[in-house]
Amino acid sequence: MKNLISCLDLSKKEIKEVIDLALKIKKGDFIPDFSGKVLTLIFASPSLRTRLSFANGFQKFGGAVSVLDAANSWNFEFRENTKMDGTTQEHFQDMIRVVSRYSDVIGIRDASLATKDPVTKSESSWEETKKNDHLVKFAKHAEKPVINMESNVFHPCQALADSMTMLENTEKKEEEIKVALTWAPHPKPLPLATPHSQMLLPSRLGMKVNLVCPPGFELDPEILKEAKKNASGFEIHHEQNILKEMDFVIAKSWASLRYFGNWSEEKKYRNKFSDWTLNEKKIGKAKFMHCLPIRRNVVATDKLLDSKNSLIIDEAENRMWAQIALLEKVLGKMAK
Amino acid sequence: MKNLISCLDLSKKEIKEVIDLALKIKKGDFIPDFSGKVLTLIFASPSLRTRLSFANGFQKFGGAVSVLDAANSWNFEFRENTKMDGTTQEHFQDMIRVVSRYSDVIGIRDASLATKDPVTKSESSWEETKKNDHLVKFAKHAEKPVINMESNVFHPCQALADSMTMLENTEKKEEEIKVALTWAPHPKPLPLATPHSQMLLPSRLGMKVNLVCPPGFELDPEILKEAKKNASGFEIHHEQNILKEMDFVIAKSWASLRYFGNWSEEKKYRNKFSDWTLNEKKIGKAKFMHCLPIRRNVVATDKLLDSKNSLIIDEAENRMWAQIALLEKVLGKMAK
Amino acid sequence: MKNLISCLDLSKKEIKEVIDLALKIKKGDFIPDFSGKVLTLIFASPSLRTRLSFANGFQKFGGAVSVLDAANSWNFEFRENTKMDGTTQEHFQDMIRVVSRYSDVIGIRDASLATKDPVTKSESSWEETKKNDHLVKFAKHAEKPVINMESNVFHPCQALADSMTMLENTEKKEEEIKVALTWAPHPKPLPLATPHSQMLLPSRLGMKVNLVCPPGFELDPEILKEAKKNASGFEIHHEQNILKEMDFVIAKSWASLRYFGNWSEEKKYRNKFSDWTLNEKKIGKAKFMHCLPIRRNVVATDKLLDSKNSLIIDEAENRMWAQIALLEKVLGKMAK
Repeated sequence: MKNLISCLDLSKKEIKEVIDLALKIKKGDFIPDFSGKVLTLIFASPSLRTRLSFANGFQKFGGAVSVLDAANSWNFEFRENTKMDGTTQEHFQDMIRVVSRYSDVIGIRDASLATKDPVTKSESSWEETKKNDHLVKFAKHAEKPVINMESNVFHPCQALADSMTMLENTEKKEEEIKVALTWAPHPKPLPLATPHSQMLLPSRLGMKVNLVCPPGFELDPEILKEAKKNASGFEIHHEQNILKEMDFVIAKSWASLRYFGNWSEEKKYRNKFSDWTLNEKKIGKAKFMHCLPIRRNVVATDKLLDSKNSLIIDEAENRMWAQIALLEKVLGKMAK
Repeated sequence: MKNLISCLDLSKKEIKEVIDLALKIKKGDFIPDFSGKVLTLIFASPSLRTRLSFANGFQKFGGAVSVLDAANSWNFEFRENTKMDGTTQEHFQDMIRVVSRYSDVIGIRDASLATKDPVTKSESSWEETKKNDHLVKFAKHAEKPVINMESNVFHPCQALADSMTMLENTEKKEEEIKVALTWAPHPKPLPLATPHSQMLLPSRLGMKVNLVCPPGFELDPEILKEAKKNASGFEIHHEQNILKEMDFVIAKSWASLRYFGNWSEEKKYRNKFSDWTLNEKKIGKAKFMHCLPIRRNVVATDKLLDSKNSLIIDEAENRMWAQIALLEKVLGKMAK
Repeated sequence: MKNLISCLDLSKKEIKEVIDLALKIKKGDFIPDFSGKVLTLIFASPSLRTRLSFANGFQKFGGAVSVLDAANSWNFEFRENTKMDGTTQEHFQDMIRVVSRYSDVIGIRDASLATKDPVTKSESSWEETKKNDHLVKFAKHAEKPVINMESNVFHPCQALADSMTMLENTEKKEEEIKVALTWAPHPKPLPLATPHSQMLLPSRLGMKVNLVCPPGFELDPEILKEAKKNASGFEIHHEQNILKEMDFVIAKSWASLRYFGNWSEEKKYRNKFSDWTLNEKKIGKAKFMHCLPIRRNVVATDKLLDSKNSLIIDEAENRMWAQIALLEKVLGKMAK
């Protein structure tokens, strides 16, 4: 494993290895040693959990970390063969190459709902956004391993933490685990990277995967196809009553691809499903998960979030352990 | 000592222990070892001295530090039982719980003149601000020790550094030390956390404490009462001629509670006391202190600030030593 | 060497020693040990390479780093004997003194095209800007070594990395090396610190130095005089055909001093030279250098930047090695 950018190219074996190692490290049965290594984290969009789970986890085991918030100070160019006489100051690929000379491993977050033209600020369609995922496109310019800390299309670290949390909280084998990724209300249209990844990884692990969402919120077709291919069962439901049959319910809000780009129409449509707020009754005995940050009493009720069945804080903690395991894999391979 | 949030619950013994340890560490007679420990610093308001004194001090003795500037990127919710469908993105209590999973100890700054409603941005009264001090209210959600790096009401670390600086610069016993906290002019109404703490700690140590300020700048009644109860002498003066009898003069500006919220009236009233600028003549042989940053020639003259009797740089340095001692106490207790 | 602020006071011996040490460290023939030391980096203007090359390099060899972005949160006062009743919150000299108490060594960047009045925001003339270079003026207040990470007039670390890169890429002796600093187009008027330094250091090393620029872009007269005095040959050319005779071509854009302050006139004049974009044909077999970030296809063509003769990524990497060597010199001297 050199880079971790897309979730599409992660094999079941690789996922399992990272999660097994993460569980071992969490229990204290394996102690990584990152001393003398430097991890650089670059944020072109804001972050709290990702930043702290990476930085603290790597430092906990002796590594050194630098964090760069590119969001406010730097205007990157993402187009190729372009005369940069406008407002962009540095090409993303040059930045990545240079930073890789200063680092042993790099994490990059460049996540938004839609790719924006750096000059006109106009938004791309979903197809263009997906095709131009900056990390998928430019990580190859790095001379050191790159980890995707969330791009426009993928958020593999979140999905690794989620799968780890499920395996940590059940005695069942992967093929028997029933999990639903369920859409939830939100005042804003949110990016698709997280739900894509949260659906792809459990599928790849062979779980029984259910996508539960209002019509028009079905996620990217290619990613659906991939999930169907790998899961031991795959169903789409447009009503929430299936949720109480699950072992795990992962709630998440995301924008409707049907109205992608027409944000006022999308909002009108999205607002029709404000009764999709999760609560204790809807999910029954299933364990509840969410990637955080969460809008309390919009995505899910206080009561559910603070109930015994809520795994949200453990899930957030597992971001750190999964990423430590990943960094161990990536720097270990490198050392060979 | 698990948390350090309010100054009201610090015993004389605890204060003395931290200061004694800080002086020892400064002299090199005790060498802390923070290796393998991670301190996370969260700033919901800006900082220079607090950030660097915590970060550099902890790292100096082998610890690792992550700093999160929440100010620009994150909009926290502080109300309970609220439907978060507005502009707030994450509940402060969820953030604290998650961050505590990534850290061995946490420092938080969330300081302003008045609590603001996250939605309407309207300001609370002083009574509401005090009652809803975010750190007093939410630190309990952390699963690791939390240190107050300045809240709306308290700034214990500044006060610890101040008391340390006084004890370092006198041969007198606490009961004999005469200290004045004196109000000073400033173009803006400033928060009350620092003067509250600068009055409470010397009182708790049993010093002879004088509050010197124009009428209407007398600080919070409950805090005054607490100071009176503990100090070996406590007086309020509305003129500065008492200052030259002091061993130490701590200058600080703060807003008038009498006009709290009516900021245009407050300004008009505050501006009447522009001749309260401190100078060498006013303080005589007393040692001069200020928490910094300082408005030169407004709070105090260049001549006083750069005089032999000015302790301002030592006082700033002692922030670091006092906090290292505090972290040693907090992580030490934890280890037991 | 206590401070590194101006390039004017660097001796040939000092430059050579830093570069020799940097090359040794890069090869692994000398391993610095910065453990227990804390480097504080203060940025009053944005940075990517400087920040990461300093932070990662120092941490790579065991040191600890704190980074403070003063740009957004803090408004420094640079005038002396001033009543600070306006918008400035802290005097630059107080900040430097305090930070030096928390650190073993400090790096400061405070770079802009022209010094600005902190209150009126009006720009100084070039003569005023040069005379009031904040780092030259205030670094003396530090109680620990200070390194200039770019001021209004000098950028010594960039120049050290450049000279290191040249010496690394030739077998020739300094006196035989032909180098041109060539002006290049840019949509904005850029500061002069980098080109000044890129001309002064090769001159001091005794190289044959050529300044290639349109008339009116000749840089500061005092700095030209210094370069002439030290270089083994010094010529000014107003046409680019000399470039193909060089061993190294360092491209850089900067503002015209002839129109300094009249920015609309300056722009009009600058735009006349848009055909100065560097390309493979213009520089022949010379090695190409640029400090980055670079506006692709404005300063130089993609083809040149990605050609075999382009040293831009090595040059950026060498920032790190040169600075590690510098920190070793500075902390080493201190230890004695």
